[in-house]
Amino acid sequence: MGFQHIEARIVAVLATPATSHFRTEPVAGLRTDLAGIIGDRHHGFTRPAGAREPWYPRGTEMRSGRQVSVVAAEELDEIARRLEIPRLEPGWIGANIVVAGVPEFTRLPWGARLVCGAGAVLVNEGDNAPCRFAGAEIGRHYPDRPGLDRQFPKAAIHLRGIVASIERAGAIAPGAVTIKIPEQKLWTGGTLI
Amino acid sequence: MGFQHIEARIVAVLATPATSHFRTEPVAGLRTDLAGIIGDRHHGFTRPAGAREPWYPRGTEMRSGRQVSVVAAEELDEIARRLEIPRLEPGWIGANIVVAGVPEFTRLPWGARLVCGAGAVLVNEGDNAPCRFAGAEIGRHYPDRPGLDRQFPKAAIHLRGIVASIERAGAIAPGAVTIKIPEQKLWTGGTLI
Repeated sequence: MGFQHIEARIVAVLATPATSHFRTEPVAGLRTDLAGIIGDRHHGFTRPAGAREPWYPRGTEMRSGRQVSVVAAEELDEIARRLEIPRLEPGWIGANIVVAGVPEFTRLPWGARLVCGAGAVLVNEGDNAPCRFAGAEIGRHYPDRPGLDRQFPKAAIHLRGIVASIERAGAIAPGAVTIKIPEQKLWTGGTLI
Repeated sequence: MGFQHIEARIVAVLATPATSHFRTEPVAGLRTDLAGIIGDRHHGFTRPAGAREPWYPRGTEMRSGRQVSVVAAEELDEIARRLEIPRLEPGWIGANIVVAGVPEFTRLPWGARLVCGAGAVLVNEGDNAPCRFAGAEIGRHYPDRPGLDRQFPKAAIHLRGIVASIERAGAIAPGAVTIKIPEQKLWTGGTLI
């Protein structure tokens, strides 16, 4: 399989403090094993189904696919611009990694690899759908702006970053990251486009 | 995330007999947990890196992504036609599931779900790259046709099916399967196409 490469950088890494909330806080680095970020609330090969999977009974144990949340600095700026707020901190929406220098970051295809200079390799598991809970957390920082919880999902569509799994265990820290983009294909159901 | 649905069918399921070889043999049904097919040699959330991942030292423990091999009956027929052989049995190339009725099966996007009527749900983890070992196994059945091992990888490109992981545990058996195709996107690196 041919890969296209982009040299980019990780500008911040964040971890969940000792709480059940999804907020994350900047740290110097993250350690991972193949089930995710060690010590993080999303660590695990599996997780219970929730509101994102209405087709499964709530609580059904399922493959995770959501070990790590990765966002792009440029896209957070664009969401902030759309919401007309001064800034959107990655920790408010539970991001673990902030990258910079990748055009159309959230549009990276499923299966793209993030090869971190510090050792870990991640696999893109697709768009992270924006939700009202993250929007409500943003709103908490702008109490004079009611309604941000509902505005966020629309403003952040295709800009909220990706979820990823760990393919090779290792460290994640600010610094170089190489994005490996697999050959892309468009299923057309047998019809020409 | 919007999904497109295709109603198709599973026409055969196959399991690895008690051997270290990759060949599979038809069975009445398969049982899965979230790490793969119970009793299969590819069962596991992780596996050692091999020839498919020359960028990792051989034997490095990595995320699997190859729990299950799924092929399409129509595509096996097309490979056989290209190789000018009477037939290509799915067990010769280690397939676990044979589907029929999905146009361009191997082109299904990463992240497509296979919702099996018998209960299991699989996630497409991408094309299964054809290799010479599978080609050699085909050649074993056509001893008067030397060179099939080398001809197979070229003839089978984008027709060799997909690898998949289990998203929801359950049974897999011949019968109905619904293919759920996620919204597709094409990363263009910021340029218009």
